[in-house]
Amino acid sequence: MTTNSHINPKARRPVKNVDVNHLFMQLRDGNVSALSQAITLVESHAGGDVAFAKAILQQSLPLSGNSFRLGITGVPGVGKSTFIEALGKHIIAAGKKLAVLAIDPSSNITRGSILGDKTRMEELVKSDRAFIRPSPAGTTLGGVARKTREAIILCEAAGYDFIIVETVGVGQSETAVHSMTDFFLLLKLAGAGDDLQGIKRGIMELADAVVINKADGKNTTAAKHAKREFKNALHLLPPKSHGWETKVHTCSGLNDIGVKEILIEIENYTSYAIANDSFSKKRNAQELYWFHQTVEDTLKTNFYNRPEVIAKLAFLEKEVLSKIKSPFDAARELLGL
Amino acid sequence: MTTNSHINPKARRPVKNVDVNHLFMQLRDGNVSALSQAITLVESHAGGDVAFAKAILQQSLPLSGNSFRLGITGVPGVGKSTFIEALGKHIIAAGKKLAVLAIDPSSNITRGSILGDKTRMEELVKSDRAFIRPSPAGTTLGGVARKTREAIILCEAAGYDFIIVETVGVGQSETAVHSMTDFFLLLKLAGAGDDLQGIKRGIMELADAVVINKADGKNTTAAKHAKREFKNALHLLPPKSHGWETKVHTCSGLNDIGVKEILIEIENYTSYAIANDSFSKKRNAQELYWFHQTVEDTLKTNFYNRPEVIAKLAFLEKEVLSKIKSPFDAARELLGL
Repeated sequence: MTTNSHINPKARRPVKNVDVNHLFMQLRDGNVSALSQAITLVESHAGGDVAFAKAILQQSLPLSGNSFRLGITGVPGVGKSTFIEALGKHIIAAGKKLAVLAIDPSSNITRGSILGDKTRMEELVKSDRAFIRPSPAGTTLGGVARKTREAIILCEAAGYDFIIVETVGVGQSETAVHSMTDFFLLLKLAGAGDDLQGIKRGIMELADAVVINKADGKNTTAAKHAKREFKNALHLLPPKSHGWETKVHTCSGLNDIGVKEILIEIENYTSYAIANDSFSKKRNAQELYWFHQTVEDTLKTNFYNRPEVIAKLAFLEKEVLSKIKSPFDAARELLGL
Repeated sequence: MTTNSHINPKARRPVKNVDVNHLFMQLRDGNVSALSQAITLVESHAGGDVAFAKAILQQSLPLSGNSFRLGITGVPGVGKSTFIEALGKHIIAAGKKLAVLAIDPSSNITRGSILGDKTRMEELVKSDRAFIRPSPAGTTLGGVARKTREAIILCEAAGYDFIIVETVGVGQSETAVHSMTDFFLLLKLAGAGDDLQGIKRGIMELADAVVINKADGKNTTAAKHAKREFKNALHLLPPKSHGWETKVHTCSGLNDIGVKEILIEIENYTSYAIANDSFSKKRNAQELYWFHQTVEDTLKTNFYNRPEVIAKLAFLEKEVLSKIKSPFDAARELLGL
């Protein structure tokens, strides 16, 4: 099917037709409602919408890539929205256009999608230089991640040159955010169970910066202590392939203390990574990662959804556990080899 | 085809026929050359051998599982052979039968397969309670891992009740060894670049014990210092799901100092894991891991080896990197969707 009535005037749809060319031109000019509509198309599962989404993505793709992509993770209560509000104001003040997106694979269950409560970002919401979009609904992380990644492309085509992708860290969502951003920031609290002992396995190794938030009032001492602890822990981790040393910061998103310094740190990283060519290398590796990941996830999903595989799987698992078949023989049988 | 001449006397092969029933009975009685021959069948790629291997594994499988499986990793030069010789003597002295296997995916390239140099295990080699087998050759870790895992089954059926699987840690081989053993021991040196800073990402989180070897002579102080450093680092890692706290030991494999204590530590772990039921849970999870891993690896390999996929892959990767196609569209195209 064609989605462009200028090219093929015969392709008419009575309702909800989308003039992709027009929508794209509006989006490219930075029209916020066009951008919103395009993201809605990308998030939609309706048959016609999928084709429209593909067409608008196709046009946006060559304009994408010219932004800085910042990933932020932190458990609920760590003050993500307040931190993003404070950081976002500095980003806007520096003349940038900011888009804030979210990945939350649990949002379709809880209905409490992150960024849903925009009241904590009231200044960003009011600014015409900021675009805020809650997490798309979805049943799988893969689906939610794809939608968010395509939303990044649309935002970049619309002229947003600083993208924040946030996550609460459900399942493997940190890995997903890490794989679509240039810099990954781990937001933590001092004490309250959100210190080193409460950290998820492997997350610290993803972080390009650790930021201890709410370092204000009576929390100040605890935050300094946590900073020292994190510094020691990071020192024990092996260095990253691109050579950047993960640093620890304290800040108060609420009082805007230490937040600008984090933006400067991010800018330092960018200069560093561009100079040693790791910036574009990382982006290319991410593109290929999503390509292969999508191929492999689809192969797996399609296989495990086949009726004859569903029918056999539980039985073969039982045979493996009762040592009737080796895991390798059971696998061959499931594969029909 | 049948591999059992007692069941089907018409199935005759003029040369290299294997009487699987006879071989299995010898193996079950602990005959070392029968065990060696069975492992050779498992390692073979020849068409007939594959069927014999399958038949003997099938008979051995119900007798397997009654051993303790210990994984050991450490870089070359850390003193693995000397350590295994010292530990092995204590294992034998405790009345056990010991099998030592190896995973080294690089062995077919370097021809310097680990355990190839048995001179450092001269007492184990001489003992009739120990069986030592070098790493099978192979081009993929998956293949080498499968062969080693099947060798474990054969050793267990032959009455070996303590299995050591060692690796030099090439590629993902630590993960493979971790996934086929009950306890994973990380062997380290103090200083000499093999301290915390030189550790591979994620390996420390796999370890159930860290052992600093060569803690003798002028190394003693450095080893104590390294022990403290590792203890601090482990303290910063999140606790394991089964609740066991990874401890750090120093030892001298050469002088047999501190080695028996490590065996006691392993026995403590076993009692602990059996008591809280995590021992069998971990084994079951490992069986299912190998089942699913084999299914998924085979799906991937078969897909990427298809001529039309090979023909398209590089071209689509180039299109992704030059933003002509999104990674998701390119994936769909490669999948023919």
